[in-house]
Amino acid sequence: MLQIALDAMGGDHAPAPEIEGALLAARQLGVKVLLVGQPDRLYPALRGAGWTTEPIEILPAREVVAMDETARQSIRTKRDSSLRVGIEALRQGLAVGFVSAGNTGAIVAAATLWLGTIPGIARPALATVLPTLSGRGTLLLDIGANADCKPAMLDQFAVMGAAYVEQILGVERPRVGLLSIGEESVKGNALTREAHALLCQHAPQRNFTFVGNVEGRDIYTGAVDVIVCDGFTGNIVLKTSEGLATALLTMLQEAWRQSTPPSRDTVAGLQQVRTRFDYAEYGGALLLGVPQPVIVAHGRSTGRAIYNAIRVAQEAHLRRLSHQIAADPAVVAMLHHPHRNGVVQDLSGLA
Amino acid sequence: MLQIALDAMGGDHAPAPEIEGALLAARQLGVKVLLVGQPDRLYPALRGAGWTTEPIEILPAREVVAMDETARQSIRTKRDSSLRVGIEALRQGLAVGFVSAGNTGAIVAAATLWLGTIPGIARPALATVLPTLSGRGTLLLDIGANADCKPAMLDQFAVMGAAYVEQILGVERPRVGLLSIGEESVKGNALTREAHALLCQHAPQRNFTFVGNVEGRDIYTGAVDVIVCDGFTGNIVLKTSEGLATALLTMLQEAWRQSTPPSRDTVAGLQQVRTRFDYAEYGGALLLGVPQPVIVAHGRSTGRAIYNAIRVAQEAHLRRLSHQIAADPAVVAMLHHPHRNGVVQDLSGLA
Repeated sequence: MLQIALDAMGGDHAPAPEIEGALLAARQLGVKVLLVGQPDRLYPALRGAGWTTEPIEILPAREVVAMDETARQSIRTKRDSSLRVGIEALRQGLAVGFVSAGNTGAIVAAATLWLGTIPGIARPALATVLPTLSGRGTLLLDIGANADCKPAMLDQFAVMGAAYVEQILGVERPRVGLLSIGEESVKGNALTREAHALLCQHAPQRNFTFVGNVEGRDIYTGAVDVIVCDGFTGNIVLKTSEGLATALLTMLQEAWRQSTPPSRDTVAGLQQVRTRFDYAEYGGALLLGVPQPVIVAHGRSTGRAIYNAIRVAQEAHLRRLSHQIAADPAVVAMLHHPHRNGVVQDLSGLA
Repeated sequence: MLQIALDAMGGDHAPAPEIEGALLAARQLGVKVLLVGQPDRLYPALRGAGWTTEPIEILPAREVVAMDETARQSIRTKRDSSLRVGIEALRQGLAVGFVSAGNTGAIVAAATLWLGTIPGIARPALATVLPTLSGRGTLLLDIGANADCKPAMLDQFAVMGAAYVEQILGVERPRVGLLSIGEESVKGNALTREAHALLCQHAPQRNFTFVGNVEGRDIYTGAVDVIVCDGFTGNIVLKTSEGLATALLTMLQEAWRQSTPPSRDTVAGLQQVRTRFDYAEYGGALLLGVPQPVIVAHGRSTGRAIYNAIRVAQEAHLRRLSHQIAADPAVVAMLHHPHRNGVVQDLSGLA
């Protein structure tokens, strides 16, 4: 039976949603969940949630990484954290995937440091699915693992994102766009112009379609399946979207408060849209580029969201996502010339 | 009487909105409008719009820069365009301000090339006011004039943005934030970390408050008056916001279509919010950093929007915006060491 490690102490409301998600996964997915955390808190909580014979095992870890800790600090000082023990289970082959709703920066740093990257991959990237008008989500990466990127990194993000939407979301020959300012190849900044050239150069050997530059206004139409950008830009896009969605819906409610109260259907419609854009509902982020699946669930994850994250980790393992990424010709070439594009692994940006 | 030059051929629906705006301005603002364009088209249109004795003069220009032309192309080949003639009127002191609803890239390139920058300012920046929850707008710059920026440029954008909101929007001691990913000074990319240090270093000498890093989610709250970023990031923020606002409101309408039709008040509320986020309604962008006021009105500008742009140009002149920018200690220092931060003027990014 496949084993998935789950950080039971990471989320904002841990361990209740983690335990609920673990029970759902153990019952429905045919996996065994390794619940990582403090046994004296987890045993009573598990029993209280109705645990009897479901395949769940507790992996003891004394410490917890706080949400406001820097990655550097947590990695240096907390050697027995649930994050460290969970990643270690993955590294030793005890688990085939790892899920945590904890501190994103710490998870990325710990996974990169202790698991390394897929051979040929310079840096892992964080990816998340955004809702679109077409109904089909768009995968955006990197959303914050790498604030400063080299062109070759964006080229690799395209490979990783395409592999994910193909294998996990079932999109055949995904359409991949490069986030820039203007559709022509000469538009953009120095980074995107060089990345554009690399993506064009590698396009004939690949099993995804590079459509060229896309703009900010294309993100929510669903015109492409994957959008790549540096982690600074991706994070700004994500936070701006969260802020704007909140502002718009608040303004709508204010506009209605000044007139007659809206009908029940109106409120239901608003709620439906809000849910579609809710980061917590839509799930967290995937760390692509490390050898084993690591899923960063949202800090406010529900039990259902944790269950979904475990399901994604299982699928990513079964579909050999990292093998597909490692087989890309440009990634293989990078393996043989690791310093060619100056993208040597460097953890300094994470802490 | 102050004279303002207006590109009569620039906008998507030129020259009708331009003529309407010129008549409004000539009647209400006490300025004379120099309408730049093809006389054989403008005279009949002016007369058709009711022009009698209003102070409007036609400045002949044979050519028109198209919306899809590159800046380089239009500057090189169209020596008698309405853009060129309008900027030339500004340069020669015939006009004290210039307004165009034409091709943004071409306007920025032409103004930078032919007017130069305010002494000490490395590069001009495009700024626009975004609506916020607090009701007070936030000025975002740069939104696209400079895809690649140096830290000293972001420091100067803060000076220019603060001068604008203080003099034109009447905000006393404006609050200025640096757009980044995480509030701590160590967060962000190489550019924002260095810009943060410069802004802190210069803060004691300035008449605005640098509040440190702000995140994407702070843009629409109105927590700060000015947000500075590089032109790539700013343009992505703007386009993402346009796309998301459209997607959200479309989703709401779809959600309602599946239930009972919304009430008239509901539709009015939606319309109110849509208007608040409509780029066309909210006006265009200001080019800050050139010696005379240049206003880039939106391509879909109405007559009212053109009138407002002329009003802003007049105010910027009367309030001596460029003098306040030139008086900033860090800008003065740059004047004496123009190559210190490697921010020598370079037009290559505009074409």
